[in-house]
Amino acid sequence: MYRLNNAGSFSDSADEIFHLIETSKKILVATHENPEGDAISSAIAVGMFLKSLDKEIYLYDKDPIPLNLRFLPWAKEFSQKLPAEPIDLLIVVDCGEIQRVGDGYENMLTINRIINIDHHFTNNNFGHANFVIPDASSTGEVLFYLFAAYGAKENKIEYKIGEELPYKAEERHRVLSKINKDMAICLYASILTDTGSFRYASATKNAFYIASVLNQYDIAPAKIAEEIYETKPLEQYKLLSKSLATLELVQDGKIASMIGSKQMLNEIFQDNENQQKGLALFENFVNYPRSINGVEIAIFFKEVSFNEYRLSFRAKSYADVSKVAEKYGGGGHKFAAGCKASGDLNNLKKDIYEYCRKVL
Amino acid sequence: MYRLNNAGSFSDSADEIFHLIETSKKILVATHENPEGDAISSAIAVGMFLKSLDKEIYLYDKDPIPLNLRFLPWAKEFSQKLPAEPIDLLIVVDCGEIQRVGDGYENMLTINRIINIDHHFTNNNFGHANFVIPDASSTGEVLFYLFAAYGAKENKIEYKIGEELPYKAEERHRVLSKINKDMAICLYASILTDTGSFRYASATKNAFYIASVLNQYDIAPAKIAEEIYETKPLEQYKLLSKSLATLELVQDGKIASMIGSKQMLNEIFQDNENQQKGLALFENFVNYPRSINGVEIAIFFKEVSFNEYRLSFRAKSYADVSKVAEKYGGGGHKFAAGCKASGDLNNLKKDIYEYCRKVL
Repeated sequence: MYRLNNAGSFSDSADEIFHLIETSKKILVATHENPEGDAISSAIAVGMFLKSLDKEIYLYDKDPIPLNLRFLPWAKEFSQKLPAEPIDLLIVVDCGEIQRVGDGYENMLTINRIINIDHHFTNNNFGHANFVIPDASSTGEVLFYLFAAYGAKENKIEYKIGEELPYKAEERHRVLSKINKDMAICLYASILTDTGSFRYASATKNAFYIASVLNQYDIAPAKIAEEIYETKPLEQYKLLSKSLATLELVQDGKIASMIGSKQMLNEIFQDNENQQKGLALFENFVNYPRSINGVEIAIFFKEVSFNEYRLSFRAKSYADVSKVAEKYGGGGHKFAAGCKASGDLNNLKKDIYEYCRKVL
Repeated sequence: MYRLNNAGSFSDSADEIFHLIETSKKILVATHENPEGDAISSAIAVGMFLKSLDKEIYLYDKDPIPLNLRFLPWAKEFSQKLPAEPIDLLIVVDCGEIQRVGDGYENMLTINRIINIDHHFTNNNFGHANFVIPDASSTGEVLFYLFAAYGAKENKIEYKIGEELPYKAEERHRVLSKINKDMAICLYASILTDTGSFRYASATKNAFYIASVLNQYDIAPAKIAEEIYETKPLEQYKLLSKSLATLELVQDGKIASMIGSKQMLNEIFQDNENQQKGLALFENFVNYPRSINGVEIAIFFKEVSFNEYRLSFRAKSYADVSKVAEKYGGGGHKFAAGCKASGDLNNLKKDIYEYCRKVL
């Protein structure tokens, strides 16, 4: 009855998911390592949904919750250890493949029932039941449909996944009966982060529609945005200051590159451990060269150890940067790709620029 | 019939606005000097609405359209000169007071009929007819209501401003009959820019609802965001690099300041004219100190000439920075204020920090 209407062969029906949940007691919810907004928010929302069904819940993620997500309700409920007792059902959210869970995924494979809930196009359908909508903005959006389907089922209301909610206020209210304010906050945080504050191509018609529905819960979107985007460590801006000074435009300004070096980390952090952790602060710096007027391809060179680089590529409108990344054994999508490379930076730049020219 | 239900004494009825428009032929649309997204987008949307009613239209703004708004349909139609011929009606958008139009506003006051369309709380009701909704996210939102009211009027459909559109698809379609795709792009650009990409407190329930309606027009929100946010001049990032290097945290990290100096402009721009223009590139830099974890008050010192500063203040959650600005004859709101100050920077900082401590 609630079979997906837009996800093709990836997905089983929502009914099958509900059956697995209803016939399980102890349920483990897991998400991917180095989790971001969609991962954490989705896992919490699933936990809250399960709690409303009186399940025993365990939330697992491999790495500590990032600073800017600790405001989320239940953020403290996550454990970085797998539960010792036997688990009836595992629900994995926001992972295209089970390996992305990181340490512990082998143990998880011994669990008898696995539900896979995701929106990645590359999802390999690893669950015993799969609920994957590749054109959803976020796993949060997928969960919105799933919770709405459950509300519709409980209240015997016709509802087609991916469509607007029923017009009649009373029916609409019942379809949303499984979503409370805290869950709305989590689902909104998912959409907000995975659409880059409604700036990416993932900011679809449906993403806006769901954001508008979630905002009926008085979730204070400005407060959520402030927590997520305005809790930067000072060190990140010190690094940004140094990194911006390396901005370089070539090919009539169509290609822009920027560097994050070990030297910069050395200057800002005293000890080796913090320098290593500091590497994470370079994340998303590639958006600065990308946002310069006239730039089509942006490249960020992150020096992970001496003369060893992690490269990020972004294209704005038409260039296929995955082809450049592939030259170095990396990959990704047309507009966002990455690879590793080593050697003298000047030589490396020369080669990379040359490959980039070919896809311009 | 379409009298506002939430704007109080500021506003006249939509019917009065429509009557003035319908009985005029040559109409001038103007907005404020140094226009940003909401100003330009709103003026264009009004122009398109008037064109659909077969009016002769003139678009005026004092300053050239910013680089990042030139993608908007009709952006080239603006003139920086007032029309020589007599005008029947002036429509001013996004101006709390007529003086904000800049040069030319005295001439405008001789026009017999003025309509004032705005969302600023401080709007002083300067028009012969006023349509001001202080709790709207943007003038674009106000125009959405106005256009919807016109569609409803033409099609004899009950519609209350500020409420969701009619449920029946056919009625809804008719209420929206005055809004085409290009106008939807403009109204969306208004909301996007005036909510800071849905991050400010102006990102209300209604703002999301309208964004979701506008997205039914296939307006490609990612493309609009790219044009608006990703057309930065390289020089802006060169300045940002230098400015970030001045970041200073005091009072246990609750106060953060950052500087934009003449010296920085001298280093980046050759001639005096460009240095002067470059001052505009410091705009919004105050958001960087504001977005640091733990910071409550952010201050940006912009050196406009030797030892002369323009100060911007931002508070995050509770401090009233307008009180600090008032000490120097400036003003603003609780969370965003500004003032001018002169003198040696170190002494100035000392005094400012002291005043800030008092409102923490």
